[in-house]
Amino acid sequence: MFWELSMIRIVIAGASGFTGAELARLLHQHPDVSVVAATSETYSGKLLSDVYPALGQAGNLRLTALAETDLTTKTCDAVFLALPHGEAQALVPKLLPAGPKVIDLSGDFRFPDTAVYETWYKRKHTAKELANKAVYGLPEFFRKEIAQAVFVANSGCFATACELALYPLLRAGLANARQLVVDAKTSPSGAGRTPANDNMLTSVSENVVPYKTAGTHQHTPEIEMILSRVTGQDVRLTLTPQLVPARRGILAVAYAPLTQSLDSGQITALYQDTYAHEPFVQVRPVLAPWPTLTCAVGTNLCVISAAVDQRTGLAVVAASLDNLIKGASGQAVQNFNLMFGLDETSGLSQCGMVP
Amino acid sequence: MFWELSMIRIVIAGASGFTGAELARLLHQHPDVSVVAATSETYSGKLLSDVYPALGQAGNLRLTALAETDLTTKTCDAVFLALPHGEAQALVPKLLPAGPKVIDLSGDFRFPDTAVYETWYKRKHTAKELANKAVYGLPEFFRKEIAQAVFVANSGCFATACELALYPLLRAGLANARQLVVDAKTSPSGAGRTPANDNMLTSVSENVVPYKTAGTHQHTPEIEMILSRVTGQDVRLTLTPQLVPARRGILAVAYAPLTQSLDSGQITALYQDTYAHEPFVQVRPVLAPWPTLTCAVGTNLCVISAAVDQRTGLAVVAASLDNLIKGASGQAVQNFNLMFGLDETSGLSQCGMVP
Amino acid sequence: MFWELSMIRIVIAGASGFTGAELARLLHQHPDVSVVAATSETYSGKLLSDVYPALGQAGNLRLTALAETDLTTKTCDAVFLALPHGEAQALVPKLLPAGPKVIDLSGDFRFPDTAVYETWYKRKHTAKELANKAVYGLPEFFRKEIAQAVFVANSGCFATACELALYPLLRAGLANARQLVVDAKTSPSGAGRTPANDNMLTSVSENVVPYKTAGTHQHTPEIEMILSRVTGQDVRLTLTPQLVPARRGILAVAYAPLTQSLDSGQITALYQDTYAHEPFVQVRPVLAPWPTLTCAVGTNLCVISAAVDQRTGLAVVAASLDNLIKGASGQAVQNFNLMFGLDETSGLSQCGMVP
Amino acid sequence: MFWELSMIRIVIAGASGFTGAELARLLHQHPDVSVVAATSETYSGKLLSDVYPALGQAGNLRLTALAETDLTTKTCDAVFLALPHGEAQALVPKLLPAGPKVIDLSGDFRFPDTAVYETWYKRKHTAKELANKAVYGLPEFFRKEIAQAVFVANSGCFATACELALYPLLRAGLANARQLVVDAKTSPSGAGRTPANDNMLTSVSENVVPYKTAGTHQHTPEIEMILSRVTGQDVRLTLTPQLVPARRGILAVAYAPLTQSLDSGQITALYQDTYAHEPFVQVRPVLAPWPTLTCAVGTNLCVISAAVDQRTGLAVVAASLDNLIKGASGQAVQNFNLMFGLDETSGLSQCGMVP
Repeated sequence: MFWELSMIRIVIAGASGFTGAELARLLHQHPDVSVVAATSETYSGKLLSDVYPALGQAGNLRLTALAETDLTTKTCDAVFLALPHGEAQALVPKLLPAGPKVIDLSGDFRFPDTAVYETWYKRKHTAKELANKAVYGLPEFFRKEIAQAVFVANSGCFATACELALYPLLRAGLANARQLVVDAKTSPSGAGRTPANDNMLTSVSENVVPYKTAGTHQHTPEIEMILSRVTGQDVRLTLTPQLVPARRGILAVAYAPLTQSLDSGQITALYQDTYAHEPFVQVRPVLAPWPTLTCAVGTNLCVISAAVDQRTGLAVVAASLDNLIKGASGQAVQNFNLMFGLDETSGLSQCGMVP
Repeated sequence: MFWELSMIRIVIAGASGFTGAELARLLHQHPDVSVVAATSETYSGKLLSDVYPALGQAGNLRLTALAETDLTTKTCDAVFLALPHGEAQALVPKLLPAGPKVIDLSGDFRFPDTAVYETWYKRKHTAKELANKAVYGLPEFFRKEIAQAVFVANSGCFATACELALYPLLRAGLANARQLVVDAKTSPSGAGRTPANDNMLTSVSENVVPYKTAGTHQHTPEIEMILSRVTGQDVRLTLTPQLVPARRGILAVAYAPLTQSLDSGQITALYQDTYAHEPFVQVRPVLAPWPTLTCAVGTNLCVISAAVDQRTGLAVVAASLDNLIKGASGQAVQNFNLMFGLDETSGLSQCGMVP
Repeated sequence: MFWELSMIRIVIAGASGFTGAELARLLHQHPDVSVVAATSETYSGKLLSDVYPALGQAGNLRLTALAETDLTTKTCDAVFLALPHGEAQALVPKLLPAGPKVIDLSGDFRFPDTAVYETWYKRKHTAKELANKAVYGLPEFFRKEIAQAVFVANSGCFATACELALYPLLRAGLANARQLVVDAKTSPSGAGRTPANDNMLTSVSENVVPYKTAGTHQHTPEIEMILSRVTGQDVRLTLTPQLVPARRGILAVAYAPLTQSLDSGQITALYQDTYAHEPFVQVRPVLAPWPTLTCAVGTNLCVISAAVDQRTGLAVVAASLDNLIKGASGQAVQNFNLMFGLDETSGLSQCGMVP
Repeated sequence: MFWELSMIRIVIAGASGFTGAELARLLHQHPDVSVVAATSETYSGKLLSDVYPALGQAGNLRLTALAETDLTTKTCDAVFLALPHGEAQALVPKLLPAGPKVIDLSGDFRFPDTAVYETWYKRKHTAKELANKAVYGLPEFFRKEIAQAVFVANSGCFATACELALYPLLRAGLANARQLVVDAKTSPSGAGRTPANDNMLTSVSENVVPYKTAGTHQHTPEIEMILSRVTGQDVRLTLTPQLVPARRGILAVAYAPLTQSLDSGQITALYQDTYAHEPFVQVRPVLAPWPTLTCAVGTNLCVISAAVDQRTGLAVVAASLDNLIKGASGQAVQNFNLMFGLDETSGLSQCGMVP
């Protein structure tokens, strides 16, 4: 159809996982794109709506095997990679020369130094030559670079929350950057759609389940690297991820030892100033209720409250986001919008639901 | 602003309850309307977003007391009444002569025969002269009448699910209309935002809680009246409402003794034919997974599966909807769209979320 | 130790599944037994508490492979089989001649007519000669037979709820036995501990998920067979199983067309009389709140309310139980107590928790 | 009856709240006590099982108004006060001279210095002369004093978790005691049974809700006072309480800056040694899964894991308990057992449930 000629043509690689399906939902509502292919190895031949009946029209995509899907500019202008960690390494070296812009949602290309990747992800990196080609996909920090990029490594879900939560404080040099704490609660959807003992209803319902505690979670070096890069400090944090019974959402509460006297009004003003022009970061006023796990669900927002506990000299900052949107697929669309010169907010919601 | 001159001006009466807040959210996304006032007795003077921070821009409405809000056509073209049951009776007699079209979400004006209302709602009706003036607000049954109406009584949440679930079968004369069963599970949000022992987390979490069982729920006569009206049969059903731990959603499973031999393919075809042109009713194919409580959450859809258990001669039909959207505020917007000659789907989603 | 000489020696086969672990918990609290072995293929060599740390002392059992575990009377007096469906068929033919009494929690030996088993479970039965040797393990119906038995086939979880819910009405000949409806909500724990898409948190949280609808669930023939046997009627029912977000619990709501006039007081009296002497069946008074999914969790109780909807001539009966206790492991202990002449309530709780 | 003569006679004041009902449940299973009265202003005249049908036989207590209940040694040997905060102050001055031993579950008498109470609880203390008469009811720290006491102020739910989590580290002088963090997740049942917006299903389901953040929660000074008293350090911490969707349970994760080099094996050994003889504190081995919110539900246990994050020099310690048992009523029974020279574990479970 004629009107489609002006549409940006998209392929979703890995459409039957949670982030892939969420991309399908978001892109269906996007006025400027047309999803021309969606891949899945497990469900190739089926419609995406066979896998996710609730998607309705957004699921009206015939799934194809990756190997049988054309990923050149003949077919598509951009490819979103929503593949299991590790698979982008094999694909990207072939994909980039073929011409489409690439947004990778995995952790594969977030680290210019692949030794860090190999240490924390416990696997070899097979495309080291491309490791420093990707722009880190957090628009609030790297908007200009993303706008110029042909290859973006989307930031991780915990990473996005932690980075936005700690950046203003660290950039201003107000906290001890080497003894940061983040206590983070997440929906098990962050681990994807593969069934496992840990993500069963009977494991998580009515529960809070710590895992990869005391400095072992693979998002730790990503957060430290990015925060160090943008604040000029040498950042160290301990992250305690915890599964909570929720279909979506991350709530990260960060604690930072202050190096200067500061009150809750001042820290809030600092955060509000820092993010004043950000369409997807909301900083709550001093006396307002703090963000909850659900408050950003369904939106591309990261909602933040910050305060100072004068008695201990600690800053306390909470950040909430939808792990599948601002923590993954929405962030990817935001990056895509920048890469193609579109309105950054296109196709992305800033309005949550109650209850 | 100039462009607002062409907007349809809306007042939400009772904006701080769940259905009122949901109206604010839906109307914020509606291209043709401008919400000019939103009332609340409890929170007058505050912003709606103070009560529901997650609403974001959709909550940027200053709440006013009803008595201080102009409800004439000088200010508004339509008023949505999202008030506690019983309060519309006092307001509507003043409101209709003032000119705006009225969509009432309560049960106050669903019954032309107010004796039925008084029996089941256990209170006096104080506006009997208007009881037969309202059109029943279920577009799938009364689209033409709604399009002509100035006063619509929005159908109830259980009622919408039960009526859409049973209509095709009863209209075709295939079932014993006097011994119908509906086993219905609902989010406690259906009872509104007032705290009570029954809607505490500790009462409903991990639980299923039957209430108003064995022919005592006030939606029973509404369902019977409407189904009798549109099918020409004398309908009787028993409804077993049950609270389940969900923020939103109704799943109604209906059982009807068949009076003729029928198989699952035939009953599915009957439902698909009946609703073939309905934008907000989806009938699942024979072998597809059945609708779940969450499958329509966030949308204005009612999703249906139908089958026959040959061994017992019973039809089994499941219908799922978002109790605050298709069961309340979305239905109200759909009715509004019809009343103002707009696209019936304007501002309403047909695409759900996963997970 | 000397005092242990008088203990009844137990083996739990399949201890690392949910019902096996629950047996370990219950038997740990039982004054008259000593668990001498607990088998697991997956975890052999580990402690049960490695798999289920919350079990504490009750999990202090070293797991062994079944093939390496002595199941003769040299070692044990009773064997509980908590194996996947189908595995008991291979084991029981060797086990019974070895002498210990056997309580099988699976569906393998519930049907004297193995053709029924083969049709509904869609697999061959490999021990047909033993199919009529097992006593059906529902003490409320077969207490005497169980007390004499060496081999008991424990009743299923849905089956226990449905049978106790419908028995008084059908025995009294008050309902049409051939058009019964049971709408049943269950914890996904009923399907065991194997991860699958259907039992993930993201599938079931905030959800109600119908499955095996319209006459396809394999508990259907069990319920019909047993109710026919004990009431003398030819029973037919349609069962709609639905997953709900709960770690434990079943709530079954049954609907039966009455053949005689009856009121809620009379039906309640009938149920109270029928179960007056049952230690584990509680019938709620007429105006009391109905049983909820959680009300029997942690106990061996089945809690029942019954009423009549006069307008439709339908009886409505709700039955709630803990699917892992009265629906499986508790029932098995109750059967065991009878088989060994112990107090029937030994080791079993009748007191639930709030909240 | 003769056998009852030897029973210790108990009154539960405030039996219809969550902790009062939980006391009824626990004491029903206690071999050495007889509950002779249970008070409730709201439900006086009813049975406790009318309020909590699930309690079964444990709820077979006729509720009486406090003013009409004899609280002297003529009737009872011990009184458990499970009253709203503030009410014990009015009662205890009359109660103690009457002779029964008293266990108060409220915060009223935890502070010898009532100025601290008045500052944090924001109300006057009306029984200052008794403020230093109560022994703080945490057996792990004050076992001997409790055994001698006639008046015990039961430790708070958050306080119990935090104190047990931080004690070994602080007593050993291994951490900076003035910059401690506790990120604590709790069931809303901790706030009792009074309905409020904050504890509705629609507020907490699928959610994590921070409240009283950044040094404002009233358990803060209790924890600091007790830890300072038993470790000889000047303790300061910031507590971030968060509501999670669970009927019961607290999971507290504590973070402490180490002042000496230490590894996870050493800190675990320290905790295991410290609590080696405690019947209700379990320390998990180094590589075992960490305690989850549900792992102690139904028991009087506090389950702990400890580790060191070498990269940041922080100790990370998680403690989990059932807020209504070890955090309230079970702790009260444990204290009671000590006060009356009974086995400390009598009537209290150490075995949790799975799932």
